Amino acid sequence: MSVHLARGARDFLPETMRHRRAVIRTIEDVFRRYGFEPLGTPAIERIETLTGKYGEEGDQLLFRILKRGEGAATGECDMALRYDLTVPLARVLAMNPGLRMPFKRFQVAPVWRADRPQRGRFREFYQCDADIAGTTSPLADAECLAVAADALTALGFDRFTLRLNDRRILRSMARVAGARPDQEIGVLIAVDKLDKIGRDGVDQALAELGLAESGREALWKVLDLPRGHETTLDALAPLLDDEGREGVATLREVLALARDLGVSADRVAVDPTLARGLDYYTGPVYEAVLDDRPIGSVAGGGRYDGLVGMFSGKTVPAVGVSLGLERLITILEEEGREAQAGATADVLVTVFSPELRGASVRVARALRQAGIATELYLDDRKLKAQLKHADARGYRFIAILGPDEAREGRWTLKRLSDGEQWSVTTEDAISRLLR
Amino acid sequence: MSVHLARGARDFLPETMRHRRAVIRTIEDVFRRYGFEPLGTPAIERIETLTGKYGEEGDQLLFRILKRGEGAATGECDMALRYDLTVPLARVLAMNPGLRMPFKRFQVAPVWRADRPQRGRFREFYQCDADIAGTTSPLADAECLAVAADALTALGFDRFTLRLNDRRILRSMARVAGARPDQEIGVLIAVDKLDKIGRDGVDQALAELGLAESGREALWKVLDLPRGHETTLDALAPLLDDEGREGVATLREVLALARDLGVSADRVAVDPTLARGLDYYTGPVYEAVLDDRPIGSVAGGGRYDGLVGMFSGKTVPAVGVSLGLERLITILEEEGREAQAGATADVLVTVFSPELRGASVRVARALRQAGIATELYLDDRKLKAQLKHADARGYRFIAILGPDEAREGRWTLKRLSDGEQWSVTTEDAISRLLR
Repeated sequence: MSVHLARGARDFLPETMRHRRAVIRTIEDVFRRYGFEPLGTPAIERIETLTGKYGEEGDQLLFRILKRGEGAATGECDMALRYDLTVPLARVLAMNPGLRMPFKRFQVAPVWRADRPQRGRFREFYQCDADIAGTTSPLADAECLAVAADALTALGFDRFTLRLNDRRILRSMARVAGARPDQEIGVLIAVDKLDKIGRDGVDQALAELGLAESGREALWKVLDLPRGHETTLDALAPLLDDEGREGVATLREVLALARDLGVSADRVAVDPTLARGLDYYTGPVYEAVLDDRPIGSVAGGGRYDGLVGMFSGKTVPAVGVSLGLERLITILEEEGREAQAGATADVLVTVFSPELRGASVRVARALRQAGIATELYLDDRKLKAQLKHADARGYRFIAILGPDEAREGRWTLKRLSDGEQWSVTTEDAISRLLR
Repeated sequence: MSVHLARGARDFLPETMRHRRAVIRTIEDVFRRYGFEPLGTPAIERIETLTGKYGEEGDQLLFRILKRGEGAATGECDMALRYDLTVPLARVLAMNPGLRMPFKRFQVAPVWRADRPQRGRFREFYQCDADIAGTTSPLADAECLAVAADALTALGFDRFTLRLNDRRILRSMARVAGARPDQEIGVLIAVDKLDKIGRDGVDQALAELGLAESGREALWKVLDLPRGHETTLDALAPLLDDEGREGVATLREVLALARDLGVSADRVAVDPTLARGLDYYTGPVYEAVLDDRPIGSVAGGGRYDGLVGMFSGKTVPAVGVSLGLERLITILEEEGREAQAGATADVLVTVFSPELRGASVRVARALRQAGIATELYLDDRKLKAQLKHADARGYRFIAILGPDEAREGRWTLKRLSDGEQWSVTTEDAISRLLR
């Protein structure tokens, strides 16, 4: 008999799970401080809600759910598992026109992609998003940058850079390079790969798209700009058309506001090559990279003012950021920086003999009532085996109720770190443990 | 253009979500006090992991996921969404033979069933389970009863009854009624429906199964016993065979231990008609019903010593309880007993004018750094509109930074409940808000 997980899926055993929960709690706490509120959406969505939002590649990665009843035999699918948390948010916004704006929500939840599984890449993984809908204010973009920076800091990361660009700058660059509107996405995708496939690779991809050499040269003037801050923006503006300069002006505002929100200026780099993969972005886009770890981004996001309108016909501007939760957790684990969340219960109550079991059970009950996490030894074994179990599991205290002690209404509370022990009543024990 | 949720799925808007999170936190806190630890398993499982565990009806309710690649065209499925949290736990136990026993875990997570949606019944809903694997001790069964009772109490329910039976009693009853081994499950299913279809309905179902009148009469002697506590067990024992009497002896032990764990005796009723639907139970089974609400059970569980062995061939005894989270949440909402979790951010920082935006942003930043949940007004509107927004959203405080105030480094903190206001520095405000 053999038994397996689904391909690309994982179990999280308690030790791992405690760490994951601690990381999520830390991030949610930062979201909450910024006034983001929790939203829940289902894992299953109608298939037409999801298709056509992520680009062709995304559509192919959807996990489709077989229709029940008659459609099943022919492989018909009416639902799919959500691919991200952004399109479901857009659906919620379209379906609930009465929501008070701006609507600031966070969601930490699994998404599914039928990707080829590989080291560190899974088919079911968590996303961790904060979004602001209903305002075009650059202050909203700045808050997304700031909340991401604060979350990274709260997790103990101090060396990271926020890369920043604007889709209008990118589109303007494509036009400067002579691209037709239908070629713009192709140019974006090619430019986004610069770090991966290098200058020659990108130039070849652009040539294959049909861009003339003169156009490509104009584009390289932009792409070759040193990636910095205000100076990059100053150099960028004259190389672009009107829409591109609008993007530059927005980025100036976002940068100033992010600084006021506590994002230090030397942490932000304007990068004209940054596109972010998803089809739906319309304005500023950004991502966070760790300075010491060339592993890609650990957060990313941007403005997507058109997505909600794809559902409702009514435009609702929106901007958001997604933390790379899985990557962050992996790094924290690799670096041994897991939060030391209480390993198990605080106390193990041992059972001296079957006759004394009732007395032990009542002690466990009293400790639990006082809010103390208490394990009760369940099996019928010698005290020695129970003490060994306590050592292995790492409880902080054990309770031992022997026959003499039970008679006197007192028992022994032992601290495992140093072996110190006290003769206590249950009340004594509670006040000592709560201290 | 029209946009919809998947059938039987729900969104949880922030107000609902806050309440759900508060309920889950309350229950998880009780689990933690008993020494249960968090486990995570994926939503997607291999199809062969899930089929054949829940009975025929369960198999039909699985949401199947279309195979990627070549299988897609023919409707082949290799995965399905989990139907409960128990079978995935059994898979984890079978795949991880090195886990230290007893293994006590909790999991609060969604499951999926392709049921016909109706009022209060959804296709994606949360289960909330605590299980103990690796011990046959009746203390483990008692802990499951006690943790369920404590969780209900922590949620504010005080009038509920725990119904208790043992599958060995039920099987013994079936044999007493003259059923062949292959008819036992049929008898269980019929008996389980007594409250729904009445005495005549059950008798007819038993006759249709092929039970003779003499056998049915022997069975009714058991089913007609008054449902109580020790007295029911006393009357039950002589009507059963050896295996049935084993069940009776176990229930006696469980009842005594549950009492020591704080479950008051008059809250537990032995009920020989209780079967619980699932195929995999082997020993004690139980459920909780609210005394004032005839809506079915709000918690249920039992011992399933054979399930892990279906995966690994090695027997791992296990027992667990599942709280009816969705039902409990609905009742709490209907009764207006939602936990009053902090409605939104505590403070709204207003923006007096575009020139003073930076000053407001810096105040918001300082409050957030101090851990105060702070909303920053994002749009460019008159102060009056901002104050109206604050009233509608229910913030506790607002911050107003006018031009004079900004110059002096002071601003106005106003409490919305009574309109009282103070002229403060940012430091003053923080210490006042943290008080």
